[in-house]
Amino acid sequence: MTRLLPVQDSSSFLSTTTIIALTVFFTLLCACIVIGHLLEENRWANESITSLLLGLISGVVVLLVTKFHSSKILVFSENLFFLYLLPPIIFNAGFQVKKKQFFQNFTTILLFGVFGSMISFCLISLGAFLLFKRIGITSLSMQDYLAVGAILSATDSVCTLQVLSQDDTPFLYSIVFGEGVVNDATSIVLFNAVQSLDLGSINAITALKLLGTFLYLFFTSTALGITVGFLSAYIIKTLYFGRHSTDREVALMMLMAYCSYMVAELLNLSGILTIFFCGIVMSHYTWHNVTESSRVTTKHSFATISFIAETFIFLYVGMDALDIDKWKSSNASLGTSIAVSSTLFALVLIGRAAFVFPISNCTNCIKRRESTQIQFRSQFIIWWAGLMRGAVTIALTYNQFSKSDTTTEDGALMITSTIIVVLFSTVVFGSITKPLIEAVKLKHAKPAISDETDSPSFEDLRLLFLENGDPNDQGNNQRGPWQSSFRLLISNPTSTVHYFWRKFDDKFMRPVFGGRGFVPFVPGSPSGAADEIS
Amino acid sequence: MTRLLPVQDSSSFLSTTTIIALTVFFTLLCACIVIGHLLEENRWANESITSLLLGLISGVVVLLVTKFHSSKILVFSENLFFLYLLPPIIFNAGFQVKKKQFFQNFTTILLFGVFGSMISFCLISLGAFLLFKRIGITSLSMQDYLAVGAILSATDSVCTLQVLSQDDTPFLYSIVFGEGVVNDATSIVLFNAVQSLDLGSINAITALKLLGTFLYLFFTSTALGITVGFLSAYIIKTLYFGRHSTDREVALMMLMAYCSYMVAELLNLSGILTIFFCGIVMSHYTWHNVTESSRVTTKHSFATISFIAETFIFLYVGMDALDIDKWKSSNASLGTSIAVSSTLFALVLIGRAAFVFPISNCTNCIKRRESTQIQFRSQFIIWWAGLMRGAVTIALTYNQFSKSDTTTEDGALMITSTIIVVLFSTVVFGSITKPLIEAVKLKHAKPAISDETDSPSFEDLRLLFLENGDPNDQGNNQRGPWQSSFRLLISNPTSTVHYFWRKFDDKFMRPVFGGRGFVPFVPGSPSGAADEIS
Repeated sequence: MTRLLPVQDSSSFLSTTTIIALTVFFTLLCACIVIGHLLEENRWANESITSLLLGLISGVVVLLVTKFHSSKILVFSENLFFLYLLPPIIFNAGFQVKKKQFFQNFTTILLFGVFGSMISFCLISLGAFLLFKRIGITSLSMQDYLAVGAILSATDSVCTLQVLSQDDTPFLYSIVFGEGVVNDATSIVLFNAVQSLDLGSINAITALKLLGTFLYLFFTSTALGITVGFLSAYIIKTLYFGRHSTDREVALMMLMAYCSYMVAELLNLSGILTIFFCGIVMSHYTWHNVTESSRVTTKHSFATISFIAETFIFLYVGMDALDIDKWKSSNASLGTSIAVSSTLFALVLIGRAAFVFPISNCTNCIKRRESTQIQFRSQFIIWWAGLMRGAVTIALTYNQFSKSDTTTEDGALMITSTIIVVLFSTVVFGSITKPLIEAVKLKHAKPAISDETDSPSFEDLRLLFLENGDPNDQGNNQRGPWQSSFRLLISNPTSTVHYFWRKFDDKFMRPVFGGRGFVPFVPGSPSGAADEIS
Repeated sequence: MTRLLPVQDSSSFLSTTTIIALTVFFTLLCACIVIGHLLEENRWANESITSLLLGLISGVVVLLVTKFHSSKILVFSENLFFLYLLPPIIFNAGFQVKKKQFFQNFTTILLFGVFGSMISFCLISLGAFLLFKRIGITSLSMQDYLAVGAILSATDSVCTLQVLSQDDTPFLYSIVFGEGVVNDATSIVLFNAVQSLDLGSINAITALKLLGTFLYLFFTSTALGITVGFLSAYIIKTLYFGRHSTDREVALMMLMAYCSYMVAELLNLSGILTIFFCGIVMSHYTWHNVTESSRVTTKHSFATISFIAETFIFLYVGMDALDIDKWKSSNASLGTSIAVSSTLFALVLIGRAAFVFPISNCTNCIKRRESTQIQFRSQFIIWWAGLMRGAVTIALTYNQFSKSDTTTEDGALMITSTIIVVLFSTVVFGSITKPLIEAVKLKHAKPAISDETDSPSFEDLRLLFLENGDPNDQGNNQRGPWQSSFRLLISNPTSTVHYFWRKFDDKFMRPVFGGRGFVPFVPGSPSGAADEIS
């Protein structure tokens, strides 16, 4: 029916150009890792920037070697990106995310990811529509403007992972990264909607339909990911793979996670959301059902694969930036290019500011406890860290503006301008964010901004609800326990939900699907237990 | 310059057919793993056969669903096989091979792999040339006959790995698997030579040139693999990656191994030999330089990736077997098909017998010690276990007989017959080998046939050469130590070489490249040591 990979028609085994491309690429990847390691101590640089710059440099070298005919060893391929590079990154993020922190901020994350992206989309589309005509771009259609909005609303969750540290700033990490994952889904939904939109009949019903589609996508994708995660936990627990080989366990976890992504794409759902939630469920249940060596292996090998994919993407984007054909066919003067790029970038800045600050303040009004509020400094970092644009943006731009080889002049200009925005935002914001966070922290001599979660109140809850807990111990609490629990439920809904979830998890879920404390016998060496069950 | 992967020209993100193909394929892979696990206790079945049969069944299903238009979800691609599936399998084999055992039998392995393959090549080519005309195949050229010889001389090292156990029968494993790796290189060299041969001028000089090419390939490929292995050990030891992240170490090992394969292919060397020796050096040096968690991760993740690739290949071959277009265009009657397939298979049997037994007996004449001789029962198993033909054979057949879409009738017949030989040999020999080995062993009530290595003599050596060893302890050895050492050197050259290699290794190699006992400080958790060096 279709070919997964092209069959090379050359007479030799493998085409020489493919081998050259792969050799150069993998050598550069090795170089990125070594350089990234050497620059680890340096707080301005990080792996993304290193690989981006290394990609740019090698692009220049190829350009010089081929005498300005081509700068590309590899053409940016949406298939490669969406099928093979993005899934492991998002899966690993779900697998390693701190679940408690993530679910405590779930409401805020959803608000940012859904409404925020929509506000940003509207503002950028409107801004581009109003401003581009003044620069002299006239051939873009209404659909193109809407697409620009959707494309530039997609924040880069990959670079965010590298800039923010889950250990130093857990609150900011969970907000910005969680928003990035939901935002990916939102922008892709918006982009697909824009591409299939009948522009003759835009009205309130269309908008409602869009929202309906989004909600459908969100819930079905999440449900699919959770289902596959539970399935993997159940299979590995019931069949007890560890007794024969640890390799099968690891392979099954990898393959089932990837399957969840592919099935989601097959059903036209958001694969990113699916594999993210699959990762969360796998780390909560499946991971505890496997042997000790499988645990170490999965933890590190998922991180390694994700790390390689990230480096690959940035190297790729860097090499792709000098796409000489696009630069030639855009035909625009340097002035126009700069004007378009800076307009787009300004719109990105405004579009993000227009939802981060209002939504943060709204949530602050609802949450009354001082410690759970998002302070202004944190709001600023959330705004700043989400300004980076990455590979999703580039993939979407190519998809919109370089269809079927008939790129218009303005289309080519949009591609090159988007590449400039991506490069600029990644290099500049990527290098400044870390020092900025440190500066903000140091200035106020506070180890963590707003990172105090409501764990003290969770302790209260535990004391209140625990059957074995003695209520008389709480000397300074004068009211009866039920009155107090009602007060806690109102003031700390997240903790209460978390408490009941834990009880439900321990009583019903873990006995069936495994998990911490509910694992079958784990032998030290997997082959050692081969004789016990037969 | 070239595209790594095809850019999908459809308007949606990803082409639906690609997604369907990938979903079906990865679901089948999961099914293979689960079924393989359930059949673990069954001694007739193994993972290869399961996936081969599952591939066949799904081929039939696709055939029925598409109403006999196509049986293929994926077309067999040489690129996919040689670029992405074969390297991890061979690398892992080198990484996990028992080095002492392998190098002790190195001479035998080389004799089998080089001269054996050449004998087999000559016999199969000659046999096909003489017999095919009687069946009624006339359109094949001289070059085609030689190609058939090269193609069917390629044993399947992947299936051998599954059938023989390194722990139960280390001697047989090291001989058959080692031969398989060298044999892969030989057949590919022969095949390339045949394809580029000017048939007008075959003489003794051509034959000598072929041998020269082979020797050049063998030594440069091996040297390249060893160099890359040492480079990785040196980089990881000197830069001490473990202090920052275990992921970088694992990524660097993977990427450098893959690089060695690509560079070898780029220089027209044998990538298989290169990556095999790279794996050996990495397991001896690099592996000891990384953190504890990296060691567990690399050991299991390399095995897992190799395992997935193996299952993938067999599933692929199974699905590809029902290539309806080839069966249609071969146009041959059932009788002719069976005649050609059984002729080919008979030639494979004879070709292998013609070198296994003579070479074994030759080495037996040279080695005088009873325990190092290859007994007849072992010879039989070596002959038997190497009869399986696999994906390399299929890839080479496609390369020779389906060039540029103008497959002749006889070419198509050759492809379908080769597929039958591969399926038959894998299923029949794959399922019988394990019980056969057990039967031979049980019959003679001997736990291991010829698996007694000369380790006692190595103990003697250690006592003799060790500076701290007291020579007076050897009560029953009346001669002087030097006389005795000379005797040992003559009777046990391998152990002596091994002893001097160990001394050299400990004194010069390990201090530079790391290795067991020469590792830098390994912290329990990699991030814990981050502050120690700055």
